[in-house]
Amino acid sequence: MFKDGDFIYIDYTLKIKDNGKVVDTTIEEEAKKNEIYESDKKYSPQLVILGEHRVIKGLEEGLYNLNVGDEVELEVPPEKGFGERDPGKVRVVPLSELRRQKVDPYPNMLLRMADGGYATVKSVSGGRVVLDLNHPYAGKSLVYKVKVVRAIEDKAEKVKALLARWFGLEAPEKFSLDLTENSLKVNVPLEYVLVEDLGLMMRMFAKDVLTFIGQEMVVEFTEKFDKSILSSK
Amino acid sequence: MFKDGDFIYIDYTLKIKDNGKVVDTTIEEEAKKNEIYESDKKYSPQLVILGEHRVIKGLEEGLYNLNVGDEVELEVPPEKGFGERDPGKVRVVPLSELRRQKVDPYPNMLLRMADGGYATVKSVSGGRVVLDLNHPYAGKSLVYKVKVVRAIEDKAEKVKALLARWFGLEAPEKFSLDLTENSLKVNVPLEYVLVEDLGLMMRMFAKDVLTFIGQEMVVEFTEKFDKSILSSK
Repeated sequence: MFKDGDFIYIDYTLKIKDNGKVVDTTIEEEAKKNEIYESDKKYSPQLVILGEHRVIKGLEEGLYNLNVGDEVELEVPPEKGFGERDPGKVRVVPLSELRRQKVDPYPNMLLRMADGGYATVKSVSGGRVVLDLNHPYAGKSLVYKVKVVRAIEDKAEKVKALLARWFGLEAPEKFSLDLTENSLKVNVPLEYVLVEDLGLMMRMFAKDVLTFIGQEMVVEFTEKFDKSILSSK
Repeated sequence: MFKDGDFIYIDYTLKIKDNGKVVDTTIEEEAKKNEIYESDKKYSPQLVILGEHRVIKGLEEGLYNLNVGDEVELEVPPEKGFGERDPGKVRVVPLSELRRQKVDPYPNMLLRMADGGYATVKSVSGGRVVLDLNHPYAGKSLVYKVKVVRAIEDKAEKVKALLARWFGLEAPEKFSLDLTENSLKVNVPLEYVLVEDLGLMMRMFAKDVLTFIGQEMVVEFTEKFDKSILSSK
């Protein structure tokens, strides 16, 4: 049994109930078996902080009742999944407009829209294309096969988990940390200084530390430069 | 008389010799008088570190012979200014192509190119547009009216000058600095943490400190977050 604010790591495999198709997983082997493997994706158990609402609602709700080591199948209805389908989110566009954007549409093709959302091609005929702007899994019941791999309680481990969330899985080994009662000092290695949105990532990490580890914490980042930078580019 | 590595501040007004037109200045009043005033530009004396080659060559060369308070006119030939004109850098493009990009060209119009460079429209006729891709001041002799406003020698003042260069004119008041023999600690206020390219700016600043103040320096930035960030956006 878990409670709000607990840090747990889960492995999961997500299947669409009506066709049984596996569409997402944290397990490399499962991804390969179901032909959804992406070589630039890191397959490893995912951090969930309960009550944070960063994962699908039905999945998160189901996790509270589990214990470390439990492995279950959770069925999630659309309203606790990717939402109901909105029939109003269907558009008819001229085929010529898509062709102009160098898109040659066919049924079930998934298009990336300019606003970052997705659209599914429903049909192409008579020079007209029917696009469904609903999330591809809207209206679908989901089946999560989920296992609680571990839970962490140690403050230092939680800090490392948040560091991995914001700076990548290798960050906990590469950053040096100094954690005391109400203070966390984080030394940012130079290889991380030039990442895009450094300041934003520092702020998001600090916000998570304050929210989930303690509001009295002071989070201090440091970046140290010496003459070694003169010889690199 | 100055030497390589000296930090000086200059005010200048740049005129194109052949037509007498003022095209750049550090002085607000001059900008307004010559109708080149830009409201988002900060008019103030410009930092020049001699030997750094960040300013027009002929201008920099002329500065070595001056003293604080001197005000002179320097004539700079094209080869020490914006370079000679390259007659090969002229292109003829169809008018329709510019129209498609919603450009309605006229002679002497200055266009911003996709690669960040500029082009000057030389002529428009018979559906064809002649573009000159040379820098607008290539081939021109320049006249700089320049005054050495002050020179700085104090290490702490030099640090502040570099801080203003990389983080803006208000940074020296807003950042707190701790400078000792071989160490510089810079506290970055939170309002600066989210600026774009923070990491790049930190690195460029550090490189300048190491290059112009001392190679044994260690430059350490810190950013401190506490619960005050939970109440802001």
